[in-house]
Amino acid sequence: MRYAPAIARLLEELERLPGVGPKSAQRIAYYLLRTDEESAARLSDAITDVKQTIRFCSRCFNFAEDELCHICADSERDVSMICVVEEPRDVVAIERTGEFRGLYHVLEGAISPIDGIGPEQLRVRELIDRVGAGGIEEVVVATNPNVEGETTALYIARLVQPLGVKVTRIASGLPVGGDLEYADEVTLGRALEARREM
Amino acid sequence: MRYAPAIARLLEELERLPGVGPKSAQRIAYYLLRTDEESAARLSDAITDVKQTIRFCSRCFNFAEDELCHICADSERDVSMICVVEEPRDVVAIERTGEFRGLYHVLEGAISPIDGIGPEQLRVRELIDRVGAGGIEEVVVATNPNVEGETTALYIARLVQPLGVKVTRIASGLPVGGDLEYADEVTLGRALEARREM
Repeated sequence: MRYAPAIARLLEELERLPGVGPKSAQRIAYYLLRTDEESAARLSDAITDVKQTIRFCSRCFNFAEDELCHICADSERDVSMICVVEEPRDVVAIERTGEFRGLYHVLEGAISPIDGIGPEQLRVRELIDRVGAGGIEEVVVATNPNVEGETTALYIARLVQPLGVKVTRIASGLPVGGDLEYADEVTLGRALEARREM
Repeated sequence: MRYAPAIARLLEELERLPGVGPKSAQRIAYYLLRTDEESAARLSDAITDVKQTIRFCSRCFNFAEDELCHICADSERDVSMICVVEEPRDVVAIERTGEFRGLYHVLEGAISPIDGIGPEQLRVRELIDRVGAGGIEEVVVATNPNVEGETTALYIARLVQPLGVKVTRIASGLPVGGDLEYADEVTLGRALEARREM
């Protein structure tokens, strides 16, 4: 026996977490063993609590504490625009810019045939229903600028455009503060292609 | 409000863990939110459980489920040898080699004046008491081969040698399977210095 059963069990549970390998699981476990009872209880309670209080918004599938998330429930938002994202974390990222005042739609992933994820595994049907219900003027597709995200964006555009709604895609280009010299050629190519008159 | 309070609280608790920054806390929190109730409960329970069942061995300060850890309680171990390590994880590392059949002594750190850690913050007094009680033939100092570990090793050697007990230090040298070309000069120097006749 190398580890006491309680430690072995904690290590096993920690290693299930994304980005936590055996080494970091050990560091975290040792930290928890050394820390005071109260700090460990706070983490354990926070985990239990988040599972009890957080659910998915019935409209946009963002995390929510009630039937609707705080964005869908906010009467100040522009209900004529929907920004489509892959994950709730993307909602947080876009909210942080302060540039978007519309509503969101969380797909819960992106189309990825390799991983067996097709449109039916995502919240695409629900998006089309929302757009079909009327009142939407623009759908901003903000899926990630990678293969899966672009595939998903094209798929959504093909479904939404026939409904007479404008579909836009977030711009790809050089990161602000970035350096031309260090940009990869695909990004630089996109930046050139999407050049705007000054 | 960017995060629901329950999510914000979980993120805050996760970010306290060693090696977990804001990005990984977010990944872990989202994983926990997406996973089934049961998996989240298993992690939360494992944390509570480990704090309730694990304490420190009253003899060697390794983690223990009882008064003594499983190594100190094992009658098959060679009680005439004590291997001194900094942390319980070092016990696990040495046990994994299968090369040591004696007992351990966990210092709970290393001497580091910069961090304000002196011998009185460590379990040095308790080590001297164990050696002073007799029956010990050799103390193997397996603190880390860095500045703090070497300082600690020298300090311990100076206290234990006058008690008439042999003090040894684990060898420094090239890692097995390593490449001379890529070894740093200090390690290579040590490896040369500690060369043995074949």
